Parts: sequence; structure tokens; C-alpha cells
Amino acid sequence: MTDMVQARQLIDALGAAAREAAVVLAQTPAGPKRMALLSAADAITARTPDILAANARDLDFAREKGLSNAMLDRLRLDGTRIAAIAQGLREVAEQDDPVGQVIAEWDRPTGLHIRRVRTPIGVIGVIYESRPNVTADAGALALKSGNAVILRGGSESLHSSSAIHACMVEGLRAAGLPETAIQMVPTRDRAAVSAMLGAQGLIDVIIPRGGKGLVGLVQDQARVPVFAHLEGICHIYADAAADLEKARRVVLNAKTRRTGVCGSAECLLIDRAFRDRHGDVLIRDLLEAGVEVRADGDLARIPGTVPAKPDDFGREFLDMIIAAKLVDGVEEAIAHIRRHGSQHTESILTEDDATAERFFAGLDSAILMRNASTQFADGGEFGMGAEIGIATGKMHARGPVGAEQLTSFKYLVTGDGTIRA
Amino acid sequence: MTDMVQARQLIDALGAAAREAAVVLAQTPAGPKRMALLSAADAITARTPDILAANARDLDFAREKGLSNAMLDRLRLDGTRIAAIAQGLREVAEQDDPVGQVIAEWDRPTGLHIRRVRTPIGVIGVIYESRPNVTADAGALALKSGNAVILRGGSESLHSSSAIHACMVEGLRAAGLPETAIQMVPTRDRAAVSAMLGAQGLIDVIIPRGGKGLVGLVQDQARVPVFAHLEGICHIYADAAADLEKARRVVLNAKTRRTGVCGSAECLLIDRAFRDRHGDVLIRDLLEAGVEVRADGDLARIPGTVPAKPDDFGREFLDMIIAAKLVDGVEEAIAHIRRHGSQHTESILTEDDATAERFFAGLDSAILMRNASTQFADGGEFGMGAEIGIATGKMHARGPVGAEQLTSFKYLVTGDGTIRA
Repeated sequence: MTDMVQARQLIDALGAAAREAAVVLAQTPAGPKRMALLSAADAITARTPDILAANARDLDFAREKGLSNAMLDRLRLDGTRIAAIAQGLREVAEQDDPVGQVIAEWDRPTGLHIRRVRTPIGVIGVIYESRPNVTADAGALALKSGNAVILRGGSESLHSSSAIHACMVEGLRAAGLPETAIQMVPTRDRAAVSAMLGAQGLIDVIIPRGGKGLVGLVQDQARVPVFAHLEGICHIYADAAADLEKARRVVLNAKTRRTGVCGSAECLLIDRAFRDRHGDVLIRDLLEAGVEVRADGDLARIPGTVPAKPDDFGREFLDMIIAAKLVDGVEEAIAHIRRHGSQHTESILTEDDATAERFFAGLDSAILMRNASTQFADGGEFGMGAEIGIATGKMHARGPVGAEQLTSFKYLVTGDGTIRA
Repeated sequence: MTDMVQARQLIDALGAAAREAAVVLAQTPAGPKRMALLSAADAITARTPDILAANARDLDFAREKGLSNAMLDRLRLDGTRIAAIAQGLREVAEQDDPVGQVIAEWDRPTGLHIRRVRTPIGVIGVIYESRPNVTADAGALALKSGNAVILRGGSESLHSSSAIHACMVEGLRAAGLPETAIQMVPTRDRAAVSAMLGAQGLIDVIIPRGGKGLVGLVQDQARVPVFAHLEGICHIYADAAADLEKARRVVLNAKTRRTGVCGSAECLLIDRAFRDRHGDVLIRDLLEAGVEVRADGDLARIPGTVPAKPDDFGREFLDMIIAAKLVDGVEEAIAHIRRHGSQHTESILTEDDATAERFFAGLDSAILMRNASTQFADGGEFGMGAEIGIATGKMHARGPVGAEQLTSFKYLVTGDGTIRA
């Protein structure tokens, strides 16, 4: 357990420094934070060769370890990807600063004036896998929202992330902000992750970015709050009153635009009345687009489909595969989604307002849509700027997690010698 | 460990029933919830003799156990207190229903319209001590906000709480709502508390109501989120630019209006420049009102004061006692409060806007006040109607926790066949 003792000491030291930095950041106006982000973007551009060299070392290590091509692709950086990282920093820099925003204000009969004002949360811990760009994205959103951040990237991306982290620190230095505002765990030791998950009082919230394995581990073991979604098992329901052309367009986009994102549709529910009216056109569209359709009951008679097994419902394929099933109206669709969904994003296709309202009221996913693709489940598409992830919990942050969702609030109350009766 | 196994089975059964009730409640409009609360209030009034008889049994048991007079007083009900409980239910019934309220809405260039709408959290667990009225208050706020609730009262108030709970269930029944929406843990076994704290997936949030011992235990052991404050170590700072008469009025009220509440001031910080201008009038006022002033440094020379020990700072007296100290201006006041406070409520007395802004910016307590008594730290005084407690955490609910703070939200997104590029 020496590893664990050392890891705790390391995280205690990073956490204490982060907490001090957080006190400074919470009182830092928008200007220096913006400047730090712009300077970090410049540093990323200027140091592109260093970042590429560090990435080459990581790729060598990853190939030795026998990582899959998909993992290697996530890890790989090139000039275009590095330029996109710098551009992302510039976009966050130009967003509105959430800290100090007045969320609500009101007067009381006692003469008190009450304001509810956004404040940073404090110290954010981010645990991620192979994508080195998360180093910049998460660092930028944390800084924008006035939080200190401790970043723990995947062991395979350590050199790439360190090189990007050095640029973030250069940005902080240029703006006169504490360099400990954005810290990286400087070790491949996995005990550091456990130490972060138990760092109550030092880390205020943990955000895991990665596959189900990582997120599940964090949710199980964390003793600090977690903003995350375990899976995006998104449903799309074609109601009897759907417009056929809209339905065709949206279903195809929801499944095939990108299959590896959490907002990709994994299950198509078709109202029997829709099928009676329009036939099997939605299934045929998917088959023609190259999607494997795992069909239940009557739908399995459609040529080209594969019979669905029970565990194909409630499954996140993240691939050109979709489960499909007939239901009797919106109530059965709601019951199916309540049973098999992951409270991420679901969409109804209907022209009937009452049915849409019923779908919206009967479900409690973080995002519910009408006549729109589930692939819109994204902070950028919601107008929040960048996002650090999507959360499906009921507490605090839900849906896309951007800079605003990384804030808390305090009440500022003014009187005039006002006493309570 | 048989106790623990049985307790887990009990909480699993209550939790499963609560979760089913929560699905119904989340879709229940305002009307039936209001009717349930009004019917429960009528039941409380009608069954006053039963409640008094149950309370007499609890009081006998408590006297046998040798409970203190203060504890007996918290436990004791009489006609006036029971009438106040019924009145509290009627007030919550008439509040605005938070569920379904649109918190924000906006349009996107894609044509999507996005609404952020309040939803219930799900299942609330409330763990409280001897005050049987919490049964009604917590049950009412949970129901108003569309949540199911599992109540675990103090073992000494079991009969009183059960009698009040029966009235709440009568209200639910009258409104056609599931009786399992408000459940009480029907045992004095303490293992039930541990089982509640570990009931991830069944209970969404735990609210402890009681002393530091209970709250500390819950915060340490809970595996589900907790809305609470451990202590209310509230500070009041008299700045050089304070108005003397306002300062005298507010300091006295903040300490003496009620000493047993969490918003009572426990420490008075006086700017040296205030003392140079006005002398020791604030300390003399407190002494004359019968307050024991534990004074630090120069202040200890004032006749009638007691010299402060180091641990008198950062201490919640909940009594006619206050710690007092001279500081050099607002920065030293901020540093003292950051070190010794509990992030509950602090107040500055000043006519200088810049100094007040500095106090507001430099501290991160849930509630910061200017020229107003810390005793205003209360959901009713904030205009939130009843409160279930005050939270000092950074996540989700902060400050007074009323019906609105017991809600989460979801995004409702409407398009018109809208697909993502």
C-alpha cells in the first residue's frame, strides 16, 4: 500500500495548492482569465512542434502496449488537431464570464434586497482517458468559471497532455494568475485516481471523461460529487402523428451522423399506427444507409434486419447498429424508455402537441426533444460554448456541462440596519 | 449484523415504494398536491387529541431515558404547537408549485427552441431528531416539490411523528395520491439510519435536521448527496465606516433575538478604527443585554468581559455568549472569517460601498449580508415559504432549502425535423 500512501500525499499536496489558487481565482475578474486563455492558445500554436514530439513518444508507447487503432486515433495529434485546440481556447476566452452574474434578485417587505450571484465551485478534478485535447478543454472551462482544476489524463497520453499543460501554465503566468490553478497529476500511477476519488475537502467535484469502465469506476468509488453520464442510450420514437419526411430525416441523422457520440440514437421505437400508415420506410432507410437493424417482433420480418435479442434494448452500441421495436402509442414508448433508457436524451417525432407534451411530462431524461435529432445533445449546440461533458444525475449540473454549470452561487443581502422581529 | 440486514431490507422496501410513488408525483399537477396538503392540515386539526396522546407516550419514554429539559421541550406538543403545524401545511399548500416552471428558454440558429424546466429530484430522505413537527414540514415541502420522502424521526418522537404522519397519509388519500409518497421508517432501530445513508439508487438526497452530532455522522457516512450545514458559526463585522446606531441595533439582534438558531451571531469583529471613533459601545450593549462576551486582546480590558480562549473563535455557542476581537480593516476580517467560519452567514456593518463589495467578493459563505442581522438567514425571511433546512455545500442547494431547492430540471427541445450538420 506504499503506492496508495504516496498517491494520497501527492493528491493532498496538489489539492492544497489548488485550494489556495481557487481563493485567488474566485476573486479574479474576467479580464485576466480571458488573457490567460488567449495566451495559452498562442503558446499552443507556438509550441506545436514540441507537442507533436511529445505525442510521438506517447504513440510509440501505446503501440508497444498494443492499443487498438481506435485508441491510437484518439491519442494521435496533428497540425489540424492542435490548431483546433488553440481555437477552442480562444472561443472559451471570448465567452461571457459566468462568475458574478446575478441569477435572481428580489426585495422583501423587511426592506432587505436579496441577490443570488454565481460563484465558482472551488476545485474540480477531471479524470480522462486517451484524448490529450481534454487537457486544454477542461483546463479552459475550469479557469473560465473561476475554478482550480486537477487533471489526471490517461497514462498513455502523459507526454502529450504534459506538453499541452505547459502551454496552459504559460497562459496563467502571462496573466499573473497562480500557476497552480491548472495542475496535472505527474504520474502514470493508478493509485492517484483512487486518491482523487477520496479527496473530500480538497476536490469539490470529479468529472470523468471516457468509456463506461472509467465512469462506472468513478461513480462507484468516489466520495466526492461526480458530474457524469454512464451511458447515452438514446431513444427515438416515431409517433402515429409524425410527419413522414421529418421522421425519415431525423431518424437517419440521429443514428448515422456520428455513431461514436453519446447523443447517437441506439433504439428506434415505432408506433404501430405509424407503421400501418407509412410501412417500413424508416427501417429501410436505415438498412440502405448501412445500419444493422436489430428488430423485435413483427419488424424482424423485414428483409435485411437481424432479430433482436433481449439485451439489445438498453444497450449502447456506439456503432452502425440500432435496436428497433413496435409500440402501441406514446404510453408504451414512455414505459419502454423508462425501463431501458439511461436518462440522457430521447426524441419524439410527432405533429400532435398533446402527444409531445405527454412524452415531455412522462419522461425524466436530462434532455427531451421533439422533431429533432438526438445528436443535438451537446453544449455547443445548446449555445453554452464548449462543454466538459454531459451529466445525467439529478443534482446540480444536468445535461451539457459548460462553464456556467461549473459554478455555485451565494446570496448577497443588503439592508439598512435591518433587524429581524 | 442481523439488524443491519433487516434494516437494509426495510429501507429497500420503503425505497422501492417511494420510487414508484415518485414517478406518479412527478406527473401530478399542482391541484392534487395542494389538496393533499390542505386535507392533511384538516386531519391534524381533527386528530389533535390523538396527537397529544401519542406525544404523552413519547414524553413518558423520554423522561424515563432521562432526556434534558431542552430536549423534552423540543419534543413536547400542545394545542398551540399543533395548530401551528396545521397552519404551516396550509401555507405550503398555497405557495406556487415549482414543478414545470420554465427556468430559462432560448432559440438556437438551428431552429431549435430550448426550455429548461423544473422537475422533482425523486426520493428525499430526511433524518431528524426530537422535533415531531419536522414530520409535517419535511413531508409538505417534499410533496409540494413532487418528491417522495422517507422520514426517519428521532426514536424518542416515534409516537408523535407517527400520529402526524397518519394525518399526512390521510391527506394523500383524500387527493388520490399514492400513500407511499410520504413514508415513515417504522422502527427505533438505528441501523435504519445507516441503511438510508447507503441507499444509492433508491434515495436521491439525504437531509439531516438536528445537532452537530447527527449532521456530522450523516456527512461522514452518506453515500448519497447531503443537503446540510454542520454548524452556523456566523460572524458580524463592524467596519470603520459603520453607522453607529444601525450597528448597535443589528449586533444586538444578531446575537440575542434567538440564540439557539443557526443564524445567531457567534463572533463580533470590530475594526480598530470603529473602536477609536465609537469606543466600546457594542460590547457594552451586549453585556447589558446579559451576553457573556469572550473578548480577545485589548477588548478583554473592558469590565465585564471574559478573556477569550483560542477555541472560542470558530465555535458555535448557541447561547447568550459571543466571541469578540479587534481587526485591522475588512481584509483582516475576511481572513479571520475564512479561517474560523462555517460558510453559513456573515454580515458587514458599513456605509462604504467599496468596503461592502470587498466583503461580498472576498468571502464565499452561502449568505453574506450588509447592514442586516444574521438572524435573517431563514427560508421564510428570504420569501421562499417554509424551509427544510439551510445548506452550506457548494452543490445544488445552498442557503435556505425550500420547495424550489428540492427540484432538479430537464431540457425540453423542440425542432421541426431539425437535424445536426
